[in-house]
Amino acid sequence: MMKAMRLEEDFGLENIRYRDLPDPEPGPGEVVIAIEAVAINPRDRLMMLGGYGRMGGRPPLIPLCDGAGRIAAVGPGVDGVREGDFVFPHYSRTWPRGLPDPSAHGGAHGGPLDGTMRALMPVPATAVVQAPVHLTAAEAAALPCAGVTAWSAVVEQARIKTGQRVLIQGTGAISLFALQFAKLQGAEVVLISSSDEKLERARALGADHLINYRDVPDWHKPVREMTAGLGVDHVVDVGGAATLENSIGAVRTSGSISLIGVLGGSRPPFDLGRVVTRNIRLQGVTVGGRDMAERMAAAVAFHRMRPALEEKRFAFRDLAGALDALPEGRHFGKVVCEDF
Amino acid sequence: MMKAMRLEEDFGLENIRYRDLPDPEPGPGEVVIAIEAVAINPRDRLMMLGGYGRMGGRPPLIPLCDGAGRIAAVGPGVDGVREGDFVFPHYSRTWPRGLPDPSAHGGAHGGPLDGTMRALMPVPATAVVQAPVHLTAAEAAALPCAGVTAWSAVVEQARIKTGQRVLIQGTGAISLFALQFAKLQGAEVVLISSSDEKLERARALGADHLINYRDVPDWHKPVREMTAGLGVDHVVDVGGAATLENSIGAVRTSGSISLIGVLGGSRPPFDLGRVVTRNIRLQGVTVGGRDMAERMAAAVAFHRMRPALEEKRFAFRDLAGALDALPEGRHFGKVVCEDF
Amino acid sequence: MMKAMRLEEDFGLENIRYRDLPDPEPGPGEVVIAIEAVAINPRDRLMMLGGYGRMGGRPPLIPLCDGAGRIAAVGPGVDGVREGDFVFPHYSRTWPRGLPDPSAHGGAHGGPLDGTMRALMPVPATAVVQAPVHLTAAEAAALPCAGVTAWSAVVEQARIKTGQRVLIQGTGAISLFALQFAKLQGAEVVLISSSDEKLERARALGADHLINYRDVPDWHKPVREMTAGLGVDHVVDVGGAATLENSIGAVRTSGSISLIGVLGGSRPPFDLGRVVTRNIRLQGVTVGGRDMAERMAAAVAFHRMRPALEEKRFAFRDLAGALDALPEGRHFGKVVCEDF
Amino acid sequence: MMKAMRLEEDFGLENIRYRDLPDPEPGPGEVVIAIEAVAINPRDRLMMLGGYGRMGGRPPLIPLCDGAGRIAAVGPGVDGVREGDFVFPHYSRTWPRGLPDPSAHGGAHGGPLDGTMRALMPVPATAVVQAPVHLTAAEAAALPCAGVTAWSAVVEQARIKTGQRVLIQGTGAISLFALQFAKLQGAEVVLISSSDEKLERARALGADHLINYRDVPDWHKPVREMTAGLGVDHVVDVGGAATLENSIGAVRTSGSISLIGVLGGSRPPFDLGRVVTRNIRLQGVTVGGRDMAERMAAAVAFHRMRPALEEKRFAFRDLAGALDALPEGRHFGKVVCEDF
Repeated sequence: MMKAMRLEEDFGLENIRYRDLPDPEPGPGEVVIAIEAVAINPRDRLMMLGGYGRMGGRPPLIPLCDGAGRIAAVGPGVDGVREGDFVFPHYSRTWPRGLPDPSAHGGAHGGPLDGTMRALMPVPATAVVQAPVHLTAAEAAALPCAGVTAWSAVVEQARIKTGQRVLIQGTGAISLFALQFAKLQGAEVVLISSSDEKLERARALGADHLINYRDVPDWHKPVREMTAGLGVDHVVDVGGAATLENSIGAVRTSGSISLIGVLGGSRPPFDLGRVVTRNIRLQGVTVGGRDMAERMAAAVAFHRMRPALEEKRFAFRDLAGALDALPEGRHFGKVVCEDF
Repeated sequence: MMKAMRLEEDFGLENIRYRDLPDPEPGPGEVVIAIEAVAINPRDRLMMLGGYGRMGGRPPLIPLCDGAGRIAAVGPGVDGVREGDFVFPHYSRTWPRGLPDPSAHGGAHGGPLDGTMRALMPVPATAVVQAPVHLTAAEAAALPCAGVTAWSAVVEQARIKTGQRVLIQGTGAISLFALQFAKLQGAEVVLISSSDEKLERARALGADHLINYRDVPDWHKPVREMTAGLGVDHVVDVGGAATLENSIGAVRTSGSISLIGVLGGSRPPFDLGRVVTRNIRLQGVTVGGRDMAERMAAAVAFHRMRPALEEKRFAFRDLAGALDALPEGRHFGKVVCEDF
Repeated sequence: MMKAMRLEEDFGLENIRYRDLPDPEPGPGEVVIAIEAVAINPRDRLMMLGGYGRMGGRPPLIPLCDGAGRIAAVGPGVDGVREGDFVFPHYSRTWPRGLPDPSAHGGAHGGPLDGTMRALMPVPATAVVQAPVHLTAAEAAALPCAGVTAWSAVVEQARIKTGQRVLIQGTGAISLFALQFAKLQGAEVVLISSSDEKLERARALGADHLINYRDVPDWHKPVREMTAGLGVDHVVDVGGAATLENSIGAVRTSGSISLIGVLGGSRPPFDLGRVVTRNIRLQGVTVGGRDMAERMAAAVAFHRMRPALEEKRFAFRDLAGALDALPEGRHFGKVVCEDF
Repeated sequence: MMKAMRLEEDFGLENIRYRDLPDPEPGPGEVVIAIEAVAINPRDRLMMLGGYGRMGGRPPLIPLCDGAGRIAAVGPGVDGVREGDFVFPHYSRTWPRGLPDPSAHGGAHGGPLDGTMRALMPVPATAVVQAPVHLTAAEAAALPCAGVTAWSAVVEQARIKTGQRVLIQGTGAISLFALQFAKLQGAEVVLISSSDEKLERARALGADHLINYRDVPDWHKPVREMTAGLGVDHVVDVGGAATLENSIGAVRTSGSISLIGVLGGSRPPFDLGRVVTRNIRLQGVTVGGRDMAERMAAAVAFHRMRPALEEKRFAFRDLAGALDALPEGRHFGKVVCEDF
C-alpha cells in the first residue's frame, strides 16, 4: 500500500485525507513514478475547492499537478523511459505540443485526473519528461506548471531576444521563473516587488533593475524613464486588475504583455485606446505542451539553473500549511512538500 | 491657387475654413498628388477636436489622412512614380514597414502633418502607394487608414488561414474591410449588426452567417453553437466596452481578438481568468506600414475587390455633413467627399 | 475474414499478396475503419521496394498510408468518434501536431506500421480525422499524405497571403493540392506543365497563368516579367535537380521555395550566391501533424473543394496497375484504388 | 580637404587612389560622420573588382560599408542625432526595417553608393545607428555588415531559444558574431575550425564544444553523437559547397540552416531527399534592416560584448594589405583599418 492525499466524498479542503491506497501497476505504455517531492500552485487550491466545475473532475481525486521522482516500474510497450530515470510528469496527458486546444486541460493531473500527491503515480510514458539531473527532487517538482507557464510566456510566445527589456512583477514562482528564463535569453530585467528584502533576493537571481512598488505606486513612470521614454519590450503581468493599467503604461509601442495571473483581481479595467493606438499585444498564457516542457528542461539542464524555492518546506501531510503559505507576499519562489 | 480645407487658429470644427492656398511645388524626392476624393475616419474627427494633444500637431493644419488621385508633378530625384499615376498617400511618411514604432504616428497625414483635404498634396515619393486601377478615386480614398488597419488585423497579425472562422462586428468601414479581406483569405465569416438591412448588405459582400445583436444580445452563444462549442478562430472587436466580454466568449482556446475600436466605450471590463486559462490573445491594431498598404493594394487589384462606400456622398466643402454621418449606425462603409 | 494486400516474406512488389486476414477488433482507445478507397503516393512505391531501410519496418506489412471509409467499430474509452463517421486515418499515429520531430515518421501507416490496404483498419481514435462529407471515399482517400503535405507547404509554412503570387510545378497530386489551397488563400497562381492539355485542366482548377515548360525551358524569365521583374512570392518545387535553378530565378527577394519532390533528381546544384544575397528560404516539407489535417479538412469542407483524381480508377487487387500510373506525366491528380 | 580612398576611372584594385576630396556639408536631414575606423568584408573586395555589375554602381566610388566615428556636423531638420554622438552608418540607406526587399541593396554604402573609406561621410540621419559606447571605433566599425548579418541569421530568422544547440563554422567575422549572439541568446554552441589555436580562442569567446574539421572531416557524426543522435537545432553555414552536406547531416528534424557564405564554393550539391523528409529549412541571409542594427547594438551595449578583431591592424592607406588578410584561414575576426 502507498501513501496518498485524496479528496474523498466532495470538494473542499476539509475532505482531504491522508490514506493508504493500493500500489499501482503500470499498464501498457505506462510507467510508475516514485514521487519524491510535490509543489503547490494557486490553481491547485482553487481545484480542491471545486472552483473549476466540470473541468476539475469529481472526487475521489488526488490533488496537485507538480511533482518529481524516479521511474519505479515500466509497463509493456514503453520506449525511451527506463527504470531509475529522474523525471517529472507533464502537466497534462492530452497536451503533446504547443499552445492549448480544447482537450489540453482535460488530461491535467490533480483535476480532472488524479495528480502527484501520492507515493506512486502511474502515467503514460508519453507524458513523462526527463528532469535535469543537477536538480533535487524538490527543485524538479517546481517545473511542470509554473516553470512551463513562464517558459511559454517569455520564450515561446513573447519570443524575447537578447538585449530586450522585460518587466517582471513580484516574486511568486511564475515570476521568478520568468525572471530566470528572461535572463537566459539575454534580456535586461526590471523586477518590482513590495519588499526590499525580496528585491535583493531577486537581484541575486539576475534582476538588473529593482523597484519597490509600495514606494513607487506609479512604477511605470520610472520604467519608461530608464528606457528613454520608450517602455519595455515585454511585461509579465501577474497582478491583473491591480497592475494591468501600469503594465500598459510600461510597455513600448508594438510591445506585448503576458497575462498570467489574477492576484489583484480578475476584472481589470484598462485604457483600450492606448492598447489600440500603440498596437500592444495582451497574451493570455496557460502552461504549455510537453514539447515546451522538454525544451525548458534542456535549457535548465544546460545552464545548471536552479528554480527558486520557498525556504520553508512542508511535510507531505501538511498540505494545509503549504496552502497557507501560498498567498502573495508570504513566499518567495515555489512552495514544496517533501516528506511522505 | 488651390482649394483646401484647413484648421486655422485653433482646433475645433468651427475653426475649419474652406480657402485658397498657393499651389505646392514638389521638392527633391517629392511628388504632388491631385486629390480627387477624400474619406473620413473617426480618428480625423478626434484630431480636429484637438483630442490627440501633442501627437496631433498644431493649427494651421489641413485635416484627413485618406485620399486618392493622380500624380500631377514629380520632383527631382524621384524614381518609380510617374506623372498620371493613380495613387494614394500612405497614412504616415515615417512608417515604411511593419508594425508601428514610436516614430510611426509622427509622420501621419491630417495630424501632426498636413493631410489630404486639398486639391494638391505634396508627398515624399516613398510615401505614395499605387492604387488599384479598377477603383474610382472615392474607392481608392477609402484604403489608406481603414483598409490598411483591417488588413493588418486580419491578414498580417491574425494570419487567418483558409477554412478558419472569423467574427466581424458591425458595418463600419474597418469592419467591412475586415469582412472582405477575411473572405479573400478563404475564411468563414460571421457578421453581427443591429440592422437586418445592413446584415443583408453584408451578406452581399460575402458574410456567411448573420446575427442581429439587438435580437440576440448574447450573440456569443449562437456563435459557439455554430462552431461545435469551440468558438471562432478570430474576432475583430470594434465595440470595446460594449463587446469585449462577448468577444472573449465567442473565441476559441488559443484564438485571438483584434482590438481596433472603442465605439462602445474605452474602458472595457473583462474576465481576465478566461483569457488566461484559454490562452487568448488580445491584439491592439493601428494602421500599418507602407509595405502592408502595398500588399493590400495588390490583393485588392488582383481580386477586383471594391471597398464598400456609404451611398450618400458629400461635397468637399460639406465636411460637417460628412462628420455627422460617421457615428455607428448611421452609415454602411466608408464616408467620402468628392467635389472640390 | 477481411480482404487485404500484404507484403509477405520480404520487400519487393512481387511479394505482395491479395489475401484474407482475420477481422480486427478495436482495442482500448481504438476504432476500426471500414476502408472504401485507398490512394497511392510515390512514397508507397519506395516503401514497398524496401527503400526506407529501418524506417520502413519489416514484412509482413500492409502497404499505403492513404485511405478513407466509415467507422465500423469503436473500442472502449473512445470519445469523439462514432460508428458510421466518415473518416480518414492520419498519416502517422505518433504525430499529433505541427512539424515533424524524430518520432513522427515512426508511427506512419504503410511502413513501418500496417497501412490502409485492407477492408478493416484498426487505428487509435486520436489518429482519425473526420473527412469532409461532400467527398466520395476516393476523394477523401487522397487527403492524408498529398493533401496534408501541400497544406503544410502553402498554408502553414509559406503562410501565403491573399494577393501573393505562387508558382506551382506540374500536375501531380501534391502540385494540384497546392494549386487549390493557394487559390483558397486568395493567391494568384502560375502553373507550369509539359502538356497543354494538362494546363487547360489546371486552369479549370483555378490556375491564373499557364506555361508549357517544354516550349519555354527558361520559364523563370516570363514569370519574372509577369511580376514586374520582382519574381513570385513562393514556389512549390517538386522537380528537384530539374527545376531548382529556375525556381530560384523565379522567386522574389526574401521569398520562399517549398522543397517537396525529387522527380527530376535528388542532388540539385544551385547558385548559392543568389540564395544568400536575396535572402531566399528553401523549406523542405514532409506531410504534417494531425492538427494540420484537421485544419485542411475544415477548409476543404467549407469550400466544397474536390481533390483532383486521375480519371482511370484501379481495382484494389490491381496495385501493380496503379503503381504503373504514378510516374510523372502519366497521370493528373491522385491515383486511387476502389473495388475490394 | 579630407582624406579618402576612391576607385577612380574603373573597377579594379589598381584603380584605388588615396586622395584629398572636398569636405562634405550635411544637406537637409543629413549628418556628417567623422570616420575613425573602417572594416573590410569579402563583399567589399568583390565590389571593388566590379563583381556586382550594375548593383555595384560606377566609379568614381568610395569603397567599404563598415565604419564608425563621431557626428561632426548636423544638417537642418535632423532629429535624434547630435554632434559628438558615437555612431556607425547602417549598411544601406534604403533599408529601414526587416528582411531585404528589391530596393534594399540599392542604397548600400561602398557600392552602389559612396562608402566609409573617407575622413568625413555625409549620411541621412535616418541611416545612422548609435554605437555602443563601451566599444572602440575599430570595434564599432565591425558591426554594420558582419554583425547585422549574424544577428539576422541567429536572432531574427533562426530565433534561437535558450538551451538550443547551434553549430558555427570557422572563425571569420560573421561566424564569431554568430557565436557571440548565440551565446547571448543562451544557446549551447559547437564550433568547428581547421586550427587548434583558433578553436581555443573561440572557446574564450564562449564556444562550448570544439571540433577540428581537419582531424574530423565527417564532423557531423560527433555532432549527432553529442546530441543523442538528434542533431543541432541550427547551423550557421559559411562554407557552401565545402560544408552543406555535413551541415544537413548535423541538423535535427525540422531544424534550420543559415546560408551565409560561399567560402568553399557557390554551387553546393546536397541530398535534397533528406531536406524534404526531415523538413529542414535552408535560409539565405543577407545583412538586415536598420531596426535589426539597433536591436543588435542594444544587445551589444547591454552585455558589454566586444566584437572579435583580427590582431593585425592596417593603416587606412594599406587597403591592399587588409584585403590580403581576408581569405579564410588567415585571420580571426574582423579586419580593420584605423590610421588615416
